[in-house]
Amino acid sequence: MKVLYIYAHQEPKSFNAALKETALAALKEKGHEVKLSDLYAMNFNPVLTEKDFTDRKKPDIFKPFFEAIQATKTGAFAPDILAEMEKVKWADLLIFQFPIYFTSMPAIMKGWIDRVLAPGFGFNPITNSAYDTGLFKGKSAILAFTTGSPKETYSEGGAHGDVHKHLESITHCIFEFMGMEVLPSFVVYEASSMTKERGAEELERYRHRILDL
Amino acid sequence: MKVLYIYAHQEPKSFNAALKETALAALKEKGHEVKLSDLYAMNFNPVLTEKDFTDRKKPDIFKPFFEAIQATKTGAFAPDILAEMEKVKWADLLIFQFPIYFTSMPAIMKGWIDRVLAPGFGFNPITNSAYDTGLFKGKSAILAFTTGSPKETYSEGGAHGDVHKHLESITHCIFEFMGMEVLPSFVVYEASSMTKERGAEELERYRHRILDL
Repeated sequence: MKVLYIYAHQEPKSFNAALKETALAALKEKGHEVKLSDLYAMNFNPVLTEKDFTDRKKPDIFKPFFEAIQATKTGAFAPDILAEMEKVKWADLLIFQFPIYFTSMPAIMKGWIDRVLAPGFGFNPITNSAYDTGLFKGKSAILAFTTGSPKETYSEGGAHGDVHKHLESITHCIFEFMGMEVLPSFVVYEASSMTKERGAEELERYRHRILDL
Repeated sequence: MKVLYIYAHQEPKSFNAALKETALAALKEKGHEVKLSDLYAMNFNPVLTEKDFTDRKKPDIFKPFFEAIQATKTGAFAPDILAEMEKVKWADLLIFQFPIYFTSMPAIMKGWIDRVLAPGFGFNPITNSAYDTGLFKGKSAILAFTTGSPKETYSEGGAHGDVHKHLESITHCIFEFMGMEVLPSFVVYEASSMTKERGAEELERYRHRILDL
C-alpha cells in the first residue's frame, strides 16, 4: 500500500515524534511504501494567497475558489502545492498525525488542507463530484492525534463533548466529502501528563494499529 | 462597547470585505469602540513555533503548552502575540469574520487562535480555569461567515450536516471553554453564487444584526 504520512509537531524529541517514528517503522516492516510530509520541518506555508496561482484567470479580483477550479485544469498551482498534490494522487492512504490544538488541527495542517485539497482536486461542485462521487474515491484517511484533556472530558456528556463528533467537520466534511473511506481515529488522551510506562504502552498500541492496517 | 473584529479575507473587493466594512460602519454608527485585526493585511503568522517564546523555560525540548503557561506569567511572548493579546484583554466582544474553508476557519485565523488564545491566557487547566471559571468571563464572541454550500446542505439531514453543530468545536470548545458568552452566528450561505440583489440584502441583514448588538 502507498501511504502519505502528514505530520505536524515542532519538536523531534516529543511524544508525537515518537508516534511518527513508530508508525514509519511499522509501515516499513509491513513493506508499505511511504512518503512523509513533515510540515514544520518543511516550513510549510499554510496561508492561501494569490501567490498560490501562477496564472490567474481573474487578475482584477482574487476569488480563491474560482482560481483553484481553473488551476486544477491547467496545473497553474504554486510548486509547493503541486508537490503535495502529487503525493496525494500517489497515495492509497493518508494518515494525519498531530497534537490537537483547540479541538482541531494546528494551523499549519489546516493550511495544508486549505491549499492542497483544493476545489477541483478532491471535489468539484461544478461537476457534482463529492461524497459517493468524490474525486478521492478508493483512498482512505486516518486521524491520529494526542490530546491534553482526559477521555472523559472529550466524551459525550463530558465538558468538551465527544471529540469524534467534533472532528466530523474533518472526517465527514473533508475526507468523506472527497470520497475517501474514513478509518477509525487513533487517539492518545492526556498525552502531556503521561508516565513513561503509559507512553511506551501507547506507542506499542499505535504500532499494532499500524501493523494491522 | 469595545469590539475586536478579527477578519480573514485576502481580497478588498470581495463580498467578505463588504461585510466587514458594513460591520465597521454600523459599529461606529452606534458609538462602539473598535479595533480591527485584518489578518491577511497584517501578514499574520499562523504557525506556532519556539520563536513564539522569548524566554524559554525548557530550552532543550520544545513543549508549547508548558512554555505558554510560563509566558502568561512573565510576558515572554513574541511581540505580534502580545499585541493581539492586548486587543483581546481590551475587548468586550470578539467578532470573527471569515469565508468558511472546509467547515472551519481559514488556517490564518486558526493560527491566530492557536497562538494568541494561549494556555494560561484564556484558560488554565492547572488552576482549573475553564468554562464557568474561564479567564474571558464577561466577554462575548460571534462567528460571522460565508459558505459556498446552500443552507440545506449545511442543515441536519443535509449532506454536510448542521454547520452550527460542526462549529461547536469553536463556539463551545474555544469560546465557552474560555468563559465567553456565544452570540448566534451570522451566516451567509451560497455566497459565491449570489445575485447583486441578494448580496445587498445580506449586507443589510448584517448591518441590522450589528446595530442590534
